[in-house]
Amino acid sequence: MRININADMGEGYGHYNIGNDDAILSIVQSVNVACGQHGGDATVMREVCLKAKERGVSIGAHPGFNDVWGFGRRQIRMNANDLEYLVAYQLGALAGMAAYAGIKVTHVKPHGALNNMCAIDRDYAMAIGRAIKTVDPSLYYLALSQSQMEKAATDLGLPLAREAFIDRLYDDEGNLLTRTDPRAVIKDPKLAAERTVRMVLDGEIISVNGKKMPTKFDSLCIHGDEPTAIAVAQSCCEALRKAGVELVTIPEMMKG
Amino acid sequence: MRININADMGEGYGHYNIGNDDAILSIVQSVNVACGQHGGDATVMREVCLKAKERGVSIGAHPGFNDVWGFGRRQIRMNANDLEYLVAYQLGALAGMAAYAGIKVTHVKPHGALNNMCAIDRDYAMAIGRAIKTVDPSLYYLALSQSQMEKAATDLGLPLAREAFIDRLYDDEGNLLTRTDPRAVIKDPKLAAERTVRMVLDGEIISVNGKKMPTKFDSLCIHGDEPTAIAVAQSCCEALRKAGVELVTIPEMMKG
Amino acid sequence: MRININADMGEGYGHYNIGNDDAILSIVQSVNVACGQHGGDATVMREVCLKAKERGVSIGAHPGFNDVWGFGRRQIRMNANDLEYLVAYQLGALAGMAAYAGIKVTHVKPHGALNNMCAIDRDYAMAIGRAIKTVDPSLYYLALSQSQMEKAATDLGLPLAREAFIDRLYDDEGNLLTRTDPRAVIKDPKLAAERTVRMVLDGEIISVNGKKMPTKFDSLCIHGDEPTAIAVAQSCCEALRKAGVELVTIPEMMKG
Amino acid sequence: MRININADMGEGYGHYNIGNDDAILSIVQSVNVACGQHGGDATVMREVCLKAKERGVSIGAHPGFNDVWGFGRRQIRMNANDLEYLVAYQLGALAGMAAYAGIKVTHVKPHGALNNMCAIDRDYAMAIGRAIKTVDPSLYYLALSQSQMEKAATDLGLPLAREAFIDRLYDDEGNLLTRTDPRAVIKDPKLAAERTVRMVLDGEIISVNGKKMPTKFDSLCIHGDEPTAIAVAQSCCEALRKAGVELVTIPEMMKG
Repeated sequence: MRININADMGEGYGHYNIGNDDAILSIVQSVNVACGQHGGDATVMREVCLKAKERGVSIGAHPGFNDVWGFGRRQIRMNANDLEYLVAYQLGALAGMAAYAGIKVTHVKPHGALNNMCAIDRDYAMAIGRAIKTVDPSLYYLALSQSQMEKAATDLGLPLAREAFIDRLYDDEGNLLTRTDPRAVIKDPKLAAERTVRMVLDGEIISVNGKKMPTKFDSLCIHGDEPTAIAVAQSCCEALRKAGVELVTIPEMMKG
Repeated sequence: MRININADMGEGYGHYNIGNDDAILSIVQSVNVACGQHGGDATVMREVCLKAKERGVSIGAHPGFNDVWGFGRRQIRMNANDLEYLVAYQLGALAGMAAYAGIKVTHVKPHGALNNMCAIDRDYAMAIGRAIKTVDPSLYYLALSQSQMEKAATDLGLPLAREAFIDRLYDDEGNLLTRTDPRAVIKDPKLAAERTVRMVLDGEIISVNGKKMPTKFDSLCIHGDEPTAIAVAQSCCEALRKAGVELVTIPEMMKG
Repeated sequence: MRININADMGEGYGHYNIGNDDAILSIVQSVNVACGQHGGDATVMREVCLKAKERGVSIGAHPGFNDVWGFGRRQIRMNANDLEYLVAYQLGALAGMAAYAGIKVTHVKPHGALNNMCAIDRDYAMAIGRAIKTVDPSLYYLALSQSQMEKAATDLGLPLAREAFIDRLYDDEGNLLTRTDPRAVIKDPKLAAERTVRMVLDGEIISVNGKKMPTKFDSLCIHGDEPTAIAVAQSCCEALRKAGVELVTIPEMMKG
Repeated sequence: MRININADMGEGYGHYNIGNDDAILSIVQSVNVACGQHGGDATVMREVCLKAKERGVSIGAHPGFNDVWGFGRRQIRMNANDLEYLVAYQLGALAGMAAYAGIKVTHVKPHGALNNMCAIDRDYAMAIGRAIKTVDPSLYYLALSQSQMEKAATDLGLPLAREAFIDRLYDDEGNLLTRTDPRAVIKDPKLAAERTVRMVLDGEIISVNGKKMPTKFDSLCIHGDEPTAIAVAQSCCEALRKAGVELVTIPEMMKG
């Protein structure tokens, strides 16, 4: 039994720091690296690549809207072709920075509002897919399970890794509760750990109402931006390992 | 006898157009493509790559300061390592966009104020060189002849292509007259053509005072931003061809 | 009989020029000045203010999303309070630049996607209104007639100037045809002039299907970004003057 | 005996926080508010204005280069007129945001690299001065004592407030030690307090070598970005009060 844990990283910008990259890096096996458009910059990207190399963590591009002020969290309506090229640009840029660590980028996961929009908007999901296909068709499209992204990856014949969430609650339809719902984020490390182990062992997501939804996923996402996030993430990893689940990078996970 | 002619291109940004890319593309054999930090964006970069491919023109990265408002023409003092990474980022980004045309980036020439600063500042010139060495050491460093860039390329063991200017006057030390000098830019197509042919045939730059300075150069730069620029460039190319000089891409030029 | 004609201006940015400010300035009585967030910059804003002063043209703020790349034409979903402050910032900034001309800003009209969203989204329309109310409650809210902006201005007790379009066709509900409809923009100067005179004399908008819709409007918007725009605008103004309609600034229009 | 203490504030940007605004606000009598070009945004500016009002702290504009990535700490060479307008823009913008608190901006102090350059470059110092003179000639130009800024304020007939530093060491010429000198920043609260009290009581700056330099200053600057900064600042204020020095806003200080 194996699973991957991924998290976003490298979202600082110039003199601005954000997130807790070092703590996150000690927990996950794959990181999604911001690519300088919604956050992140060349200096930060290089740093994350070097650290990821050191720890044997695999890296993915985490492209976002070109919107530093909004941190990529504002939904932006734009031409899908322009979006595609904007993502291709970011994939190339990260590959450039990864050269400092002598490593390869191995997956792609959209950031923030772009990820949310791609989950439900086929045009956007396909735009990301075409960018991947053009720049490096060997990259895994890390896609929310059962989303338009999963469908786009399949339709384009791209390597696919399916994602589910450790620290977020789902409704009965399998969608994440919105962040405005006070229950949306799981903050209790013990509760999160129990849920996570069951999710992985049973291959099921359990909704806020207890509904069990069989779901395929290859990677579990954790967030670093809640004060409780690191404790939750550590607790989940520990519990998974105790339950005999091996934690592996995305390429290791997908190549079996 | 052969020579390369290069020009800057792809400096539009979003809804903003600038320059005369199509006219330039019909004249030169190599283009320096803006990489989205001082100008240019993913959509424009892709377009330029596709057109360059179509015309058999080689492409180079034209990295600049991260300063869209200043169009990369403001001198900025920054940490040389950060500059290096900023350039590496741009090299990667352009490689990503070049994938749309199925072509390779083959040279690098800094833009605007960065080029001016690199000509005389060893730290900056070396920063560009290290970025090239890390991201793709097969790229030609297109360097102003006898500048700190030429020296940096040599010291780092990078492929070097030396540059001189068709449409700009030099002083007796071999430096370009500043743009504030009314004589700085040569606007007369016939005069420019005569000078250019002599430069290439004799391997000499002729200063504003008539001083002949033997100089090695592999590529001649033209600009597109003067109203007279296209006429000047066309006249020079025609005259070169009549004089039996073959116009070739940078890789063709350097590989003999 | 009097009417105002307004147009957007001052949308250049750094080395990037756009639009045809001088031609526009010779036609309209009021200009909407970009405020540096979607386009425009301090240098351009000052220039427009000086020219407007010279010609007796009144100036308004033309705030947009903070999105230079998208030129304020991308719809962005953001917190309405943050939007309000972003607009207040722009109102203040333009007031600062207007000091160079010794003139006062007298109206506010949102730009591009923000204007489109404010027309139908009450939260956004109110956000603009609150910004006006805080920074300078004497400013006219230049609002698309019968839009959420008109309603917001009324609810907040703000001075209101209602806007209609000279060069755009309406559907039978009084909404503008989307730009993707080939009929959306009126490009024939004579046709535009006839329509405009009838609109002003009869106080009616005529839909694409000939439906007459009595509508109150104080200002007619023209655009400068179509190749036909200047000819259309000139033709309309001439026809209005011939029909005995006096063309006045927004404050003159509203104060009777 | 009275003195003012000032500090920079409101330099967050979108989702990025920086500095320790609340702690700073409880210590100083005047704050320099970032104006959205090197840092700060409309939301942050409004917040700072409201808090300053609440505490009776006076506010000043803290204009910087338009360089969010560089946080205004990169030296940028630009046209002095463009710089002037860029500063005027920021003065206007802050005045707009101050309307939320119903307060007036009362001083101007350039930020970071701009402040450093203005200290020694007359063109830049005059550009700031002309912006002040145009937008609001009643604003105090908060200028490093004996700098080109002080001279520019005098030449332009602007209200002037002279500044010295609490937490930085000076050389024998009265210049600040560069930050690369390990002694540059005073980190010991007790030492800083003793020095500060002597500076204020004696009207003298004491150099790193013990040289006493009689200097006129009206305001003492503290920084919030060293881990020791808050403790140093608190200690200085306490010591000043114990020594019978009254701490007042810049307008109170200057109006006697």
